[in-house]
Amino acid sequence: VSILLIGDLTRSEYESWRERLSACLPASEKLFASDEDYERDDIDIALVANPPAGSLSQLPNLRFIQSLWAGVDRLLSDPTLPTDVPVSRLVDPNLTQAMVECVVAHVLFLHRQIPQYLGQQSSAEWKQWTQPLAMQRRVGMLGLGQLGGAAAQALSRLGFDVVGWSAAPRTVKGIRTLHSAERLNSVLRDTEILVNLLPLTPQTTGILRKELFHVLPRGASIINLARGEHLVEEDLIDALATGHISHAILDVFRTEPLPPQHPFWSHPRVSVFPHVAAATDPDSATQLAANNIAAFRAGRTPVFLVDRRKGY
Amino acid sequence: VSILLIGDLTRSEYESWRERLSACLPASEKLFASDEDYERDDIDIALVANPPAGSLSQLPNLRFIQSLWAGVDRLLSDPTLPTDVPVSRLVDPNLTQAMVECVVAHVLFLHRQIPQYLGQQSSAEWKQWTQPLAMQRRVGMLGLGQLGGAAAQALSRLGFDVVGWSAAPRTVKGIRTLHSAERLNSVLRDTEILVNLLPLTPQTTGILRKELFHVLPRGASIINLARGEHLVEEDLIDALATGHISHAILDVFRTEPLPPQHPFWSHPRVSVFPHVAAATDPDSATQLAANNIAAFRAGRTPVFLVDRRKGY
Repeated sequence: VSILLIGDLTRSEYESWRERLSACLPASEKLFASDEDYERDDIDIALVANPPAGSLSQLPNLRFIQSLWAGVDRLLSDPTLPTDVPVSRLVDPNLTQAMVECVVAHVLFLHRQIPQYLGQQSSAEWKQWTQPLAMQRRVGMLGLGQLGGAAAQALSRLGFDVVGWSAAPRTVKGIRTLHSAERLNSVLRDTEILVNLLPLTPQTTGILRKELFHVLPRGASIINLARGEHLVEEDLIDALATGHISHAILDVFRTEPLPPQHPFWSHPRVSVFPHVAAATDPDSATQLAANNIAAFRAGRTPVFLVDRRKGY
Repeated sequence: VSILLIGDLTRSEYESWRERLSACLPASEKLFASDEDYERDDIDIALVANPPAGSLSQLPNLRFIQSLWAGVDRLLSDPTLPTDVPVSRLVDPNLTQAMVECVVAHVLFLHRQIPQYLGQQSSAEWKQWTQPLAMQRRVGMLGLGQLGGAAAQALSRLGFDVVGWSAAPRTVKGIRTLHSAERLNSVLRDTEILVNLLPLTPQTTGILRKELFHVLPRGASIINLARGEHLVEEDLIDALATGHISHAILDVFRTEPLPPQHPFWSHPRVSVFPHVAAATDPDSATQLAANNIAAFRAGRTPVFLVDRRKGY
């Protein structure tokens, strides 16, 4: 039996993952990169990082899939993915911490009106604006998984008035949470800063659209750190034009890299980040993947198994 | 006996303070604004907000001075200020909270490399940079009073590696602190982001100068939220030109408003804020001042008395 490392990786990325994995896996494990020669029948574990659609269905004896990313929406969207093979996603405390720092940075950037002040600087304008305290600022958190839950708690510890929403019921210590599509509007109505950390599923695709923007109070801001497909880009541009949405911070896009002609680049009220919210840390990812493989080999249940019906 | 409200205030600001103060002070208190008719001999308490130099020495029966600001450096720099009259400064938990939010916003702005990404956006450049975690980022906090101590703790709770420095010994729960001029360099040597919240005293005037910048590691950033006089502006411009200092966030300046021709306005690696870190909240300031006046009238010691020798 062998492990196959397969994904949207360059040769040097394969080498770098292989080197790290070899240091963490027992010497008895055989590891192949997908551009090497291997026997399909031999592979019982796939370590994946955006594998080509159709590739995993070619492995007749596959028994476990470990993702090297937290998001598995692209993996699950492959209709040929074997339905009976368990999939684990990567939940790395370092990645969670990076996302928490990113969310708090962007929320404070908007809360402290930094975009306005930087705009004023460009015209040497000395003008002070009333500054509310965090406790006077309602932040709405969409998505209360590992990332959204931890980010909501960090914002709350800093003093923000945080309300969380998720499709299914979730409890997050110290945070007021609501769930279900019916109650989304009651979260949006008072939200000044909306953070999206939802998983991408058929239900959440395009959730950041005209109808949602119009329930937010006039002047609200949005921060999208999840997936480009959550956002209907044209609707955001319209809502920015009317001033209903005052600013958007976008880290993810439908097409990445964001094409050079895209209107977001030059929009004065859009801050563009090149998908840098929380990158996989190869060292800790390798260790976590190796631990999960060891659990699988020992007959234990791997951690962070994906629920295929939910999509995460 | 009467209270005099005196400062660098417009008529409408006087009226606004008077209205708030009247609601908080007992009906027996007589309150005058300095542009009204009053008997100098009657005044035993001065409520001050940058009073003109020499004005307080004209009040022969003055027994207590309550500042409406936290910083009393301008007040104490008046050589005619009566030496035997106690001075209290304003320590407002809301102002402390505002400063904490401001410090965390600016440190995260630098930590998350937001200036670089906004610069890349202006040329539609999609480029990712290695992002350390907060625990891998050393923040040096100069000044460990109410504001610096609280800000250091908030940064530490978010994960930053914080070291605090103050002229006199200070303990801040959970924070490693050093004191004395001799040990300043050992704080600076490993500091990537330096925050200044020192009081302005003869010893700290011009502390942010060439000699200090050169002890910081190459590429360090500075955040000045205290007083413009802490910074030697020409030295900062030189250190930015060589790249030794990579970015500066400045909220305070030697001349405010910052003159339109000042090179900071257009400097790509200086972020200019118009003295907005933490404004006095008139409602809570009024209540705190009224409480301190009540304490003084009842023969109790007012809180937050200034130590004239230390200067804060």
